[in-house]
This record gives sequence, C-alpha cells and structure tokens, in this order.
Amino acid sequence: MRDSYREQLDDVLADLVHMAQVVSSAVRSATTALLEADIHLAEQVISEDERIDAKQAEIEGRAFSLLARQAPVAGELRTIVATLRMVTELERMGDLAAHIAKIARLRYPETAVPETLRPNFVRMGDVAEKMVITAGQTLNDRNIQSAQELRARDVEMDELRRTQFRLMLSDDWEYGVEAAVDVALLGRYYERIADHAASMGRRIIYVVTGQLPEDQI
Amino acid sequence: MRDSYREQLDDVLADLVHMAQVVSSAVRSATTALLEADIHLAEQVISEDERIDAKQAEIEGRAFSLLARQAPVAGELRTIVATLRMVTELERMGDLAAHIAKIARLRYPETAVPETLRPNFVRMGDVAEKMVITAGQTLNDRNIQSAQELRARDVEMDELRRTQFRLMLSDDWEYGVEAAVDVALLGRYYERIADHAASMGRRIIYVVTGQLPEDQI
Repeated sequence: MRDSYREQLDDVLADLVHMAQVVSSAVRSATTALLEADIHLAEQVISEDERIDAKQAEIEGRAFSLLARQAPVAGELRTIVATLRMVTELERMGDLAAHIAKIARLRYPETAVPETLRPNFVRMGDVAEKMVITAGQTLNDRNIQSAQELRARDVEMDELRRTQFRLMLSDDWEYGVEAAVDVALLGRYYERIADHAASMGRRIIYVVTGQLPEDQI
Repeated sequence: MRDSYREQLDDVLADLVHMAQVVSSAVRSATTALLEADIHLAEQVISEDERIDAKQAEIEGRAFSLLARQAPVAGELRTIVATLRMVTELERMGDLAAHIAKIARLRYPETAVPETLRPNFVRMGDVAEKMVITAGQTLNDRNIQSAQELRARDVEMDELRRTQFRLMLSDDWEYGVEAAVDVALLGRYYERIADHAASMGRRIIYVVTGQLPEDQI
C-alpha cells in the first residue's frame, strides 16, 4: 500500500476502474448466456456477482477509512463521496447482470428471447456493455466529454425499450405471456444498467467540476 | 438553523425521517391510484416525485457540508455516510412510486391490475408502504429490533411476487400479454421499494452498532 493520502485515493479509484471492467465483462457474458442459452456462462455470471459484492465492500471500507483518517480537502472529499456512490452503482449493475443470467438459466435449454427480438437484445446488450466501459474509462481519464456521451447512449437504450413494448403489445405477438414477461423484465434490467452508467457519468462530472449537471443525479 | 454540529446532524436526520413519511405516503397513493384507476391521484404522485428529488438534493448538500466543515468523529462519520445513502434510497423509492403511478395513468380509465391479482396487489402495496414507514421509524428511534422486522416483511414481498408469476404463467391466465407485462413490472417496482426499505434497515443497524448485518448491504 502506498503512503500518501493522495496516492491511496488514486489506488481506490484505480480499483473502481478495474471493477467497472469486471462489471462490463459480466454484462457481456450475461447477454451471451441469454442469446445463446449458455448455461455455463450464466452460472459463471451468477457466481461472479459474489466477487463483485466482495469488491464493493472492500472499496467502501477503504474509502471510508480515507474519510475517517484525515480530513480531506474539498476536491478529495468530493471524490471520496462520489466513490462511495459509484461503487454502489457498479455493485447494482453486477446484480442486474446476474438477474439477466438467472432468466437465461431459468429458460435453458430454450432461449428466453424470441427470435423477433433478438436484434433488439443484441443491440441492448452492446449499448449496456459499452456504457459500463465508457463509465470506467471516463473515471480513469476524468474526461467530461465521454461522461456526456453516456447520455446519448442512454437515449438509445430508452428507444430500444420502446421498440420492445411496441412488438410485445402488437397483435402479431405470437410468443405468449411467458416470453413477454421475460422480455419486459430483461428490458428493465438493461435499462437500469444504462441508468446507473449514466449516473456514474454525472458523478464524474461532479468530481471534475464540482458542479452537478443540470439533470439531477 | 441550530448551532452545534451534533444538533445540525440531528436536524438532517429529522428531515430524513420526514422524507420517509412523504415517500410512504407516495407509495400508498400510487397503490390507490393503481387499484382505483384514480388519474388525479396518479398525477399527484408523479408531480410529487420532483419535490422528493429536490428534498434529496437539499439533504445531500447539508450532509456533505457537515462532512466538509469539520472532521466528524467515528459515530458521526458513520451516520453522515449512511445518511448520504439512505437519502438516495428514499429518492429511488419515490421514483418507483412514480413508475407505479405512470402505469396507472397509462391504463386509465381501465385498471392495470386484473381482478384475480387485486388481493395480491392490495397486500403488496400495504407491505411496501409499511416497510417505508418502519424504515423511517427505525431511523427515528435508532431501534435495531424494528430494522430486523424489515427483513421478515421483505420475505413476504418475495412470496407475493412468486404468487404473481404463478398466476400469470398458469394456463388459466385470461388477461393477455399487456396485463402480464404490467403486472411483471409493477411487481418488480414494489419488490424494489421493499428491497430499499430493507437496505435502509441494514444501514441503521450499521449506524447504531458500527457493524454491518451478515447479509451485505
């Protein structure tokens, strides 16, 4: 462990960036498990979630002791408080990836996603994964511009979800109630992953500028 | 505003207790709007959510400036960090109540809840509202025992949700895809309100004892 306060804070942030990589990989694996009905990958995402939870607890503990040990100056204080929140958001994204994997497991050997919605879910999975990656990179680079890009992707996610509802509630829907319930919940999980990534972006803007962007956290 | 650090922290906690009352009332109104197809009440819950968001921002700001202004001792620090989280949880519960109200509004003048699931949703709404009330009282009394009661109610909520799935996925389901999608999402929203209330309970145990209960936050 490094000595200076600033170095220890940087180490916590580096761990948070690494946690974002782990979570983005969980989102990708959950999507593959879902679309390919891959039960082993689904199990892996579900068990990996415990490691993400443990990582959250560890990062929280370190951030808290940085708060307790020495009164941090304004910018550091903002960073630590934002860290405590971002780590909670990443942990939630891990939970949501596990929820997706659990639906994949529940329907195995069938796939939960009907053929007509496959392209939609491919895209949703891609947008969600990229948003988590962007959130991690944004944190690493303290780059406000990429934080703002997250908002545009979040809009695309909302659009993808509207398409799902349109297809499910049309008269042509031939996949029954169970598939519709799965799709509604899966869509909600992906949307929430995107929301959390966008929220991380806003927190990073706050860390860098000291100001919250106009749409509240 | 009162003078001493401890008094100001107590004022923040009192505001958080008051916010829990506002949120529990939003949950109750959302349930009534849903079950009675009451569009005015639904609109009220949706617009009230902005006031809840504003309250969150205000409480956060005060908690943050307590952190910044004076290095708090261990118990106070724990309390402030827990406050920053509980205020986020209450804000999310307000969002979820608004989501429920939006489904009520979307289906008006029909009710989104099919007759067969009405008793289930009456109970879900009641459990969720009571959990938010209990979370607020627990915070007010710093009473660990009521924090533990939240866990038992959370188990009941999970059971109610399983009943929903059983009914929706049975061959007797006669309400079609749209109602099933509504029920799946509504059930998820109530379940999340319960999760947040249970999580608040765990945070209060942490504030009082300095220890997290065994099941992680």
